[in-house]
Amino acid sequence: MTQANSFTRFDTFAKTWIPEIEGYMRKRVNQSRPVVDGMYAMMRYHLGWEDQQGLPEHAPQGKRVRPLVVLMACFAAGGDPRQAIPAAAAVELLHNFSLIHDDIEDQSPTRRHRPTLYSCVGEAQAINAGDAMFSLAHTVLQGLSESGVPDARVLAARQVFDLTCLRLTEGQYLDMSFETQTSVSLDTYMTMIAGKTAALLAASAQLGALVADSHSLQAFWRFGHELGLSFQVQDDILGTWGDEAVTGKSSASDILTRKKTLPVLFALSQTGPEAEALQSLYNRQAQITHDDLAAILASMERLGAREHAEAAAEHHGRAALQALEETDSRHDGVALLSQLTTMLLGRNA
Amino acid sequence: MTQANSFTRFDTFAKTWIPEIEGYMRKRVNQSRPVVDGMYAMMRYHLGWEDQQGLPEHAPQGKRVRPLVVLMACFAAGGDPRQAIPAAAAVELLHNFSLIHDDIEDQSPTRRHRPTLYSCVGEAQAINAGDAMFSLAHTVLQGLSESGVPDARVLAARQVFDLTCLRLTEGQYLDMSFETQTSVSLDTYMTMIAGKTAALLAASAQLGALVADSHSLQAFWRFGHELGLSFQVQDDILGTWGDEAVTGKSSASDILTRKKTLPVLFALSQTGPEAEALQSLYNRQAQITHDDLAAILASMERLGAREHAEAAAEHHGRAALQALEETDSRHDGVALLSQLTTMLLGRNA
Repeated sequence: MTQANSFTRFDTFAKTWIPEIEGYMRKRVNQSRPVVDGMYAMMRYHLGWEDQQGLPEHAPQGKRVRPLVVLMACFAAGGDPRQAIPAAAAVELLHNFSLIHDDIEDQSPTRRHRPTLYSCVGEAQAINAGDAMFSLAHTVLQGLSESGVPDARVLAARQVFDLTCLRLTEGQYLDMSFETQTSVSLDTYMTMIAGKTAALLAASAQLGALVADSHSLQAFWRFGHELGLSFQVQDDILGTWGDEAVTGKSSASDILTRKKTLPVLFALSQTGPEAEALQSLYNRQAQITHDDLAAILASMERLGAREHAEAAAEHHGRAALQALEETDSRHDGVALLSQLTTMLLGRNA
Repeated sequence: MTQANSFTRFDTFAKTWIPEIEGYMRKRVNQSRPVVDGMYAMMRYHLGWEDQQGLPEHAPQGKRVRPLVVLMACFAAGGDPRQAIPAAAAVELLHNFSLIHDDIEDQSPTRRHRPTLYSCVGEAQAINAGDAMFSLAHTVLQGLSESGVPDARVLAARQVFDLTCLRLTEGQYLDMSFETQTSVSLDTYMTMIAGKTAALLAASAQLGALVADSHSLQAFWRFGHELGLSFQVQDDILGTWGDEAVTGKSSASDILTRKKTLPVLFALSQTGPEAEALQSLYNRQAQITHDDLAAILASMERLGAREHAEAAAEHHGRAALQALEETDSRHDGVALLSQLTTMLLGRNA
């Protein structure tokens, strides 16, 4: 199959199914009694469906990567994507719950060019709205029963989902704890992103395959896990060397905020005078100036940080594709997931 | 059966089962990898098992009312309480998750005479630790499968649990939204406490009965629901007229913080000069002084607020006992739950 062909198929799949996922999510987020509708209105605002006054809006939304992975994995494993829609919607709601709380935890004023939920309604109501979306994600997953998935498999899906929630919070715990640690090992960093980023993508692939009653659940999980690791490392590279005009974030934003990303941790973990100079520059209390920034980036390059991160992103991307080959899947389904992998890892924003 | 006999039974039941519930919770909260143990340490601190340094502590804990209701309902419905332990532990963890987030939302510095979790670790880590305990509650509930409950009933239990989470957040949403509203109807107040307080007690009774495969699930649910309403109104009465020496809270604390409780809302909803004077006193911006307080309390009494609240607490308490009579239960199980009801509603702290 040619690249172009494969992209067309991917595009058609996404165009067909994203509205279905969206429709299912809307139906479930709107199921409320008037007296508590204000709580659901907060969710609708966060999801980009309404503005702060509750009027319909079509704000920029996420790429819906996770729910697409659910449906593509279900299709690849020989299932009917329609049956997996409740799992896709649940995964997307879970992702969005985590964004609502992350924004409070990071004190981020904007997301997708709009004020974050907590900036609009205050922290107290936003914490609770996040909890509500977390709860709703669980009830939405139960929709698998209504779409005809047998009890034992619904229970298995719920266990995958629960464990993923725990891994997500563990990853978030580590990420926040890095802020107050002067030294973080590369191993601990990988554990952090395995929780914070890869756990939900791994669960997405596994859930789709589970709905299809696949025998390759572990391989699907590994596909999502490796894709997630690769995706996060790529994100780290863009946060350091990305083009401001394309990413929409100020260039080297991760360096300016002293985020402990893979390239930074790799550079800091080296020995010798170059690494020591970088360590003292990075661990100083003072703000990082424009001149510092240029020196830090040059030093990181010389220490091989960019090369290491690019090799890691590629390694995990290849491992994702390898895991995909090990699944017992239909050829056109594998092509869709490969295309998704190539797109995510080749992205520059 | 005499009162004394019934109390002895209650006491024996609680003494037998609370350590079992506690043991199950400890086992599940301690199941962590060293790298993320710090997150579980936050949960152990909140639960009163460890101090801020992570050293063992036996801090005052809650009354464990909810998990006891789970086990007593299971016993009353003819089941083996042991089989319901995962549900009891899940309900207690869910309750504690909500306390962690409530303390942040209310900015409460202390709980049970210790600094609240967020006061120790900051809001960001505490929000996430709450999310982790919420996630853990779900995985713990799944333990019902290991204790031999069939898949269909585990799924039913999970649905009860999920819906309860949503009702809890709806109640919390309403409670917080009352702070910025000048007028709240008694109906809306009842909807708020049905979510914030009664939903989890209703779920506790229903879950216990569900594990025992009872045919009286609705009546058990109603028992917990009415018990919860009665419990909350009793709490409102204590927050207004309770004895400081017994409750441990400053007397009339709910009035001083202008909380919208049933007695206050009842008094404010009356008509005539007495009610109007109270409305203007209560809705003023200025702080409530000691002199105001005496006037407010006297005015509330004259408007029948105390009488109304006491009648409401009694009404819902009786409705709880009535629902209990409608369950298909063993006599000694009903006696336990009646005793619990009598104790909770006769309490003065």
